[in-house]
Amino acid sequence: MTDTTALIDDYIAIWNEPDSGRRRELIARTWTEDASYVDPMLTGAGHDGIDAMIAGAQQQFPGLRFELAGAPEAHHDRVRFTWHLKPEAGGEAVAIGSDFGLVSDDGRLRSVTGFLDLVPAG
Amino acid sequence: MTDTTALIDDYIAIWNEPDSGRRRELIARTWTEDASYVDPMLTGAGHDGIDAMIAGAQQQFPGLRFELAGAPEAHHDRVRFTWHLKPEAGGEAVAIGSDFGLVSDDGRLRSVTGFLDLVPAG
Repeated sequence: MTDTTALIDDYIAIWNEPDSGRRRELIARTWTEDASYVDPMLTGAGHDGIDAMIAGAQQQFPGLRFELAGAPEAHHDRVRFTWHLKPEAGGEAVAIGSDFGLVSDDGRLRSVTGFLDLVPAG
Repeated sequence: MTDTTALIDDYIAIWNEPDSGRRRELIARTWTEDASYVDPMLTGAGHDGIDAMIAGAQQQFPGLRFELAGAPEAHHDRVRFTWHLKPEAGGEAVAIGSDFGLVSDDGRLRSVTGFLDLVPAG
């Protein structure tokens, strides 16, 4: 479970990392080369595709950051965790979601599916 | 979404179906031949493996039945839904879980991952 916690901490850090070089380093150690992400609004595949997707999301949600809510749960090669999207200045979550991942034998994520539990109003 | 609702209604019905013949018919139309299921306690692969897993679970939880809680959510080829395990005689859920599925091009489930939201006491 310690490996899973570190993996998901890095996963969340990627979404919050504005520096392109550091984000790419984190992506390389967190996602497999053939990894893919899909949620109701976004999709990305491979390190380039995931990086471009996250850079786009950061432009769309300025002043907000992702926080892990509770400990990730893992069994077999699966993991589930919940995140909150919150104003950097503090305050209530503006969006909440749950992500479900497949972990490869090398300990990196090879697939993540996101679902929204609380959708931004408006 | 109507297809998804029918698919997940059948998925739940399989868990509750005590008749082996009817359960196998439902499995054949709900799961692909190479499908797999995994949760923290159970695993099953292929129609035979999934049928054996569910028959075993029914023996383990006599007098209980699964109910879908709310509408399934779907995007792309993914689906998420929550179930309650309740006494057939009525009353509170004794277990609650969330399942995440991959749907094949032919509309059947090819993978389901279960997580537990409320675990039976004792």
